[in-house]
Amino acid sequence: MAEPIASTPALPSLDDVYRAAERLEGQAHRTPVFTSRTLDERCGARVFLKCENYQRTGAFKFRGALNAVSKLPSTEQRRGVLTFSSGNHAGAMALVGRLLGVPTTVIMPKNAPLAKVEATRGYGAEVILYDPEETTREALATQMREERGLTLIPPYDHADVVAGQGTAALELFEQAGPLDALLVPCGGGGLLSGCSIVAKGAVSPCRVVGVEPETADDATRSFRSGTLHRVHNPPTVADGLRTPSLGAITFPLIQAHVDEFQTVTEAEIIASMHFLWTRMKLVVEPSGAVAPAPLINGTASSRWGERVGVILSGGNVDLDSACSLLARV
Amino acid sequence: MAEPIASTPALPSLDDVYRAAERLEGQAHRTPVFTSRTLDERCGARVFLKCENYQRTGAFKFRGALNAVSKLPSTEQRRGVLTFSSGNHAGAMALVGRLLGVPTTVIMPKNAPLAKVEATRGYGAEVILYDPEETTREALATQMREERGLTLIPPYDHADVVAGQGTAALELFEQAGPLDALLVPCGGGGLLSGCSIVAKGAVSPCRVVGVEPETADDATRSFRSGTLHRVHNPPTVADGLRTPSLGAITFPLIQAHVDEFQTVTEAEIIASMHFLWTRMKLVVEPSGAVAPAPLINGTASSRWGERVGVILSGGNVDLDSACSLLARV
Repeated sequence: MAEPIASTPALPSLDDVYRAAERLEGQAHRTPVFTSRTLDERCGARVFLKCENYQRTGAFKFRGALNAVSKLPSTEQRRGVLTFSSGNHAGAMALVGRLLGVPTTVIMPKNAPLAKVEATRGYGAEVILYDPEETTREALATQMREERGLTLIPPYDHADVVAGQGTAALELFEQAGPLDALLVPCGGGGLLSGCSIVAKGAVSPCRVVGVEPETADDATRSFRSGTLHRVHNPPTVADGLRTPSLGAITFPLIQAHVDEFQTVTEAEIIASMHFLWTRMKLVVEPSGAVAPAPLINGTASSRWGERVGVILSGGNVDLDSACSLLARV
Repeated sequence: MAEPIASTPALPSLDDVYRAAERLEGQAHRTPVFTSRTLDERCGARVFLKCENYQRTGAFKFRGALNAVSKLPSTEQRRGVLTFSSGNHAGAMALVGRLLGVPTTVIMPKNAPLAKVEATRGYGAEVILYDPEETTREALATQMREERGLTLIPPYDHADVVAGQGTAALELFEQAGPLDALLVPCGGGGLLSGCSIVAKGAVSPCRVVGVEPETADDATRSFRSGTLHRVHNPPTVADGLRTPSLGAITFPLIQAHVDEFQTVTEAEIIASMHFLWTRMKLVVEPSGAVAPAPLINGTASSRWGERVGVILSGGNVDLDSACSLLARV
């Protein structure tokens, strides 16, 4: 174990995840758990896939966004919230803003895909485009907070966001029963750290495995060395996992609760996606195919036991790009 | 109503569907029902999609095949069963044969996609390839029945196959509650006629709507005229619905229980498939996107009421072909 970080902020607890689940009740989908005889035979375990591609806005991000915005005092809700994301957190925050009547501003790079900008605007959020050559999203966010008094809800390094993401694992345990291992994809670590809190609070022991693209293995290196590693715009097809590093909240949680990291190659991610689309009829995005990739490709680094849970994190794809990727298989 | 056909064979009843459901218990999947707020808003109704793409072998065909083969006397089961199909019925029969230990022979055209031939062989069936230029599958089937004493289970025109397919609607009513209308795709009419028996036996009135590609509208013309119409190899992307005509069992059932037919264009089928893949994250084959096409495209011929059920019939696609189709949207 690494030394604790000097200025560790308050970390969310299992109780926070339970309270998040209460807030999500009736708003978030209780997403289905899928199984596959073919997959089970292939890896010699019973595998439970938690399908967050069927979550509202097409990814688990809705959970954390809803929990974090719901918890804000009404004075802050009235002034509005702010985030930066060019991916699934943007859409989730925009829908949450609409549902709760909270004005929502999303900072996106001007080269973000037009479809994502339009989807975010479609939910009623204000989108501020910035030129990454001229400024950073952090600088812009600071300026907007000061000018407009907005509350920042970042994509992963926030206790209430992490607690919200943990509800995915809470449901999976309720739906599947005891698990010997839980595989979770890792970008900034919001989903992984939230789910790890739940797995370590389970009645029977459950090994928590973070899965990361080999070409974006900053969390793996951080976990193994105990010091924070970074990547810059890593060349992975898993666009949701291109985050630069773990955060001040997610890193200590991962150090405390995660047992193991495994990396997967780009070819393994694409083969995993191909299996999920063609054999299981599940549209998942490349990042969503990362966690099951070791099982589908038969490259699991350990024997994880009889019952293995996996989070399929999302299903938002640009169909043309996905088809190009899948044509390589 | 048309006059009854002179030599009508015994038609399956609602009770036959209930007994089929008992035979399927624990073997067939109870497939999930999906809903979409976006779709509901688009068509002003609550829509319940019965996802037979998640049935075993990827399509509803497993239901009818299992029911029909299960019901055979053990002497016939020992000699083996025979069918002809280049599509989902072939895979379903092959898996049923493996599960029940019944030798299964499938007659397929020699130009059938290699992937389908291999999948059928993969389940353990014997595949007999024939040259459509030299013989017909019916002539070959007759020859095989006589030589080997095999029992023929055709793809749709068989009372036990029809009763088995009806269990999809039975489950949908159990899962979704009362429905004002039920939309079912129509090829040879096995699924439509089986589901129509159930809808007409429901406690509250349910309008049954057959949906067919405009370019393969033989059932629509047969239904409207009361005489059997045929098509020959119609040019629709919905390859599961290219059957030449309704059958001796399915036509009278459809005349008795179906209220209405609607046809959909090729562009509407592809747009429906695009919506299901990208918005609902469901991999469906073109034939599976036919029934919801009027709702998704806003081209419903009638106002079908508040609660509308739809059968998504299957999800077996060749990914390259599907991607080419979807790139047109």
